[in-house]
This record gives sequence, C-alpha cells and structure tokens, in this order.
Amino acid sequence: MTSFGVLAGRTLVTGHGTENDFVLVPDPDGELTITPSEVAAVCDRHAGVGGDGLIRVVRSGALTAGADLLAEHPDAEWFMDYRNADGSYAEMCGNGVRVFVHYLRTAGLIDLDDGGSVVVGTRGGARRVTREGEQYTADMGRWWLPGAEQAAAQGHDVVVDIPGLDGPRGGLRIAVPNPHVVVALPDEASLAAAHLILDGASQPTYEPVPPEGTNLELVVPLGENVDDGSVVGAVRMRVLERGVGETRSCGTGTCAAALAVRTWGGAGSPDTWRVLVPGGEVRVRVDGDRVLLTGSAELTADVVLRD
Amino acid sequence: MTSFGVLAGRTLVTGHGTENDFVLVPDPDGELTITPSEVAAVCDRHAGVGGDGLIRVVRSGALTAGADLLAEHPDAEWFMDYRNADGSYAEMCGNGVRVFVHYLRTAGLIDLDDGGSVVVGTRGGARRVTREGEQYTADMGRWWLPGAEQAAAQGHDVVVDIPGLDGPRGGLRIAVPNPHVVVALPDEASLAAAHLILDGASQPTYEPVPPEGTNLELVVPLGENVDDGSVVGAVRMRVLERGVGETRSCGTGTCAAALAVRTWGGAGSPDTWRVLVPGGEVRVRVDGDRVLLTGSAELTADVVLRD
Repeated sequence: MTSFGVLAGRTLVTGHGTENDFVLVPDPDGELTITPSEVAAVCDRHAGVGGDGLIRVVRSGALTAGADLLAEHPDAEWFMDYRNADGSYAEMCGNGVRVFVHYLRTAGLIDLDDGGSVVVGTRGGARRVTREGEQYTADMGRWWLPGAEQAAAQGHDVVVDIPGLDGPRGGLRIAVPNPHVVVALPDEASLAAAHLILDGASQPTYEPVPPEGTNLELVVPLGENVDDGSVVGAVRMRVLERGVGETRSCGTGTCAAALAVRTWGGAGSPDTWRVLVPGGEVRVRVDGDRVLLTGSAELTADVVLRD
Repeated sequence: MTSFGVLAGRTLVTGHGTENDFVLVPDPDGELTITPSEVAAVCDRHAGVGGDGLIRVVRSGALTAGADLLAEHPDAEWFMDYRNADGSYAEMCGNGVRVFVHYLRTAGLIDLDDGGSVVVGTRGGARRVTREGEQYTADMGRWWLPGAEQAAAQGHDVVVDIPGLDGPRGGLRIAVPNPHVVVALPDEASLAAAHLILDGASQPTYEPVPPEGTNLELVVPLGENVDDGSVVGAVRMRVLERGVGETRSCGTGTCAAALAVRTWGGAGSPDTWRVLVPGGEVRVRVDGDRVLLTGSAELTADVVLRD
C-alpha cells in the first residue's frame, strides 16, 4: 500500500504554471508535519497524485521554525513551504509562487485586485507577486554573471558537450541565483536534436565541471519586435533541470535564457523578453540587477487521497 | 485554459496496478461521450490528472455501440471502456482490468467474495477476473509464437540492436495477442545499461522489422524455487511499450516475459512465474494456450476537475 500518511483523507489542490506542476496542501494553521517520504509518495506520478513539487500553504504566523526568513517583510501573511518531488526543501520556485498566489486569491484567502500585489514568504526570502489580469509577476531577486568579466564579454565561460549535437559549444554561466549554463543554438532543428536526458551514458558534460552541478538551457534567439511601443526580444528554450531531467518549464531557467541572450546582444538589447518553453510562454523583465517573471497559473483539480 | 470538457466538475478516481496508472470515470448509465482531446487533457501528467489511460466504468446494457463484443458473455454486467492516454481506443489492459474490478468492488457496484469471480466486457472480448485476497487474477486470453516452429526451437526469430548494450541480440516474438519481442540478458547490470527510449537517435532496431511495431521486454531469468509445493520460476524485466516508451509495468509484457523464458526452458519448465517489474511484482500462470495474470490493484484518490 502507498503511504500518504498525514495527507490521506485531506483535500489537496493541483495546479501548474506553464506545466510546471504542483500539489498544494492547505494548512493555514500549520498543523501538518509532512515527511519526505509522504511528499515523495504524493508527488509520484504513477502511484500518487503527481507533481514537480509540493507546496504547503501556511500562515507565516503559524510557522514554528524559519520565521527569521521573514524578517525583511513582517507583512508576508502567507508562507510558501516548497518541497521538491523527492521531499527535499527548496528555497523558491518561480512558477510555483504564481500558482501559490493564484490559489490564495481563488480560495478567498487574500484580496488581490488587478494590478495589486502581495508579499509572500519563501525560504529564499520574501517575494512580491503582482497580479496582471489573469497572470502574475514574481520578483525573482538578484542575478549576476559568475564568470570573469572577460569571459562574459566573450559570451561564454564554459564549454558544453551535448549528446545529439555536432561537437562542443560555448555556454554562459548565469546565477539567478541558482546555477545555470545557457547555450545558443542556430535553429529549432538543432534544438530538437539535443538529447536532454540524465541517464549515465549520454548526458551533457561541462568543462570546467560546475562544482554544484548546473541547470542547462538551450536557446534559439527569435529576434526582437516592437510591442506596445517598446522593444521585446523573444527566445525559444529547452531546459535540463539539475537532478530532475528535462522539464516543460523552469522559472529561473527562463530568466537565465533571457539574461544570456540579452548579454550576448550587448548595449541596447531589450529588457523585456518572451520566453517560449515546451509548456507555454512566460515574460522576463530585467530591472538592473533584479529580474521579474510573468506568467499564467492554473488550478486543475481538487483531490482527496485515499488511505 | 485546459479543456476537460464533459469531465469538468465530475468526481473521478485514480488508481494503479504495479504503477501502471489510470483515471477511472464512473458513468454507469452511459451518459458521457468523451472526446480524444478530453482524454488527452485529463491523462496529461502536468496539466491534467495524469495516467497511462482512462477507463470509463459503464454498464454493458447502457452501451449504444460495441455490444456485439459481449455476445460471448451476456452476463458481463460492466464494461471497461479503455482509452490510451492519447485518446485512442485499446482492446484490453491487463493491469487496468484489475483496477477496474477493484473499483467496482470498493464502490459496492459488485459483490466479490474472496475466490469469487466476475466477467467484465472489454473491446477485446469478455474477460473473467478472480479475486484472490486483495489481489486479482485476469484471464488474458490466448498466446502463441508467431515465428516458425524452427525459429522458436532456436529460441529467437528476430535480431534486436539495443542502444547501451554491446551488439545485437536474438529475440523471441510472442503474441499475447498484441506483438512482443523478448530478449534475454545475462545479468542485472546489462538490464540497467540498456537505453529504453523512443527518441529518434537512439532507439532499438529490429531485423526483420515488425510490420506493426512491437513491445520489447528485456529479461533476466532468476531461476526457479519451490513455493507451496509447486515449482515457480522468476524473471526480472524492463519493458518498452510500443508508441509509449519505457513504463513501470505492462500486463501483456509480463506475460510475454514469462512465456519466453518458459519456452527457452523447454519441457519441464514451470507454468507459474513471478515477474519483477520496476513498479512491483506480478504472477503469470500458463494454462495451455491461455495465460493468466495475477497482481495488486490500488485506488489512490478521488479527484474533481476544475473548469
């Protein structure tokens, strides 16, 4: 028998942002202690509900640990307690935080008019999320180029060998602040040909080897357009998430993709980018050393786990 | 927005047999016409509920088409209307029929004492399913060796080249009645090394090419044991399902694995086999030209899709 433990019999909610999907566990009063094996059982795509991660929805005031994370913003009423599908803790999730806020709004736990914003607590610090119609914009925090300035000026500071492609290519490291390597490809045929898998015999290799691993984004720049009076760039990407494999979307990965293409474009390159991922489309806006991510959020079902 | 169509707002049930997982749609009175795109939306693992297939639970008497399939067994009160995750129709599903019967029993739609059996309608004909404690045994129907007798006597009638392994190997074709090719490997390290993926650049190739495609089972025979007075063989397998990719279990695949190893063992080889798959363990029993499959069935959650 599968063991859903404390989650059996509870009503959960599933949702996704550009098909990065989550199981939401309403726990406003912080009554639940969810073990890693319970998270893994629920996130299992065949024997559980299935999800890239689990988000416990809890009032900040009900947290018994980690309250120091909220020191910056004592007005963060709600805390996004994010767990990866394997039960480990994660600091933040750019697609997840939109689904989190959409759930709070839909469930009537917050009032959020169009254009209004809310500050939510996360292990990565408090984050402001702004509603724009039926989409949400999350402040993803600071970004930087970990490579030396010279390497960044050359456009690459790591060499990546990707199965399915004809030889190694230069990649640019971006911190958002988790580690990314972005590689430009000339066309969508090359993008489709890449083997983004993590099994032992045919995975991408890096020189130098990233000490803590890395996410990898393969991007095809799609040019720029004038949209509503301002210049907007566009880029298509596939992403290989560290420790996970290829996914349909990755919030920090879309930011890294836009930031890399903008870096390669040099001075005058747009600050706003449409990023097309397998699971849909998001919009990345660079504001100096900060980056903002806009996209959709969907709630798909109410789920009651059986014992 | 995802379009769940007629399924939005309904209570569905999820379940699995050795992690071959399904979305059950209770529709006793046959009121629902579910389009392929609705099936695909619900079975989508990121934007829907997720499942290898969708099973509509409908009374045979409420069917408006396909009633001829039940001519053999007018006593098949319930019909398993099975759809693949892409919305296409399938005749039968060996793991799904156990979950189907477990649902009928749990929901109180049938009485099924331990040792009792029920006949269910499927597009592949009526099938008898017998309860054995908390497990179920399904009559999977007839099997045969499509290759010439001589080829079968040699133990193989097709050559298979599998990425990740050191050179081509002989395979044995088995009809259950859908097409399978079974390849024996010497140890579990070889089993783990095989790349069972379907992307263009590195998939298994066959000589001769199976005209309608094939499922592929890689097996490591684990010897025989005496269990409760009779000899029981054991085999570990991985399976690549036609048009799907690697799965954690495949009902007809486990039958093919046992039937191939039994064929290679010759006269005196056991009729009962434990088959270990990534999603668990099933038991295959050969009864002349028929084969029976025993395994677990779990119901995991009640799900209400949002609009």
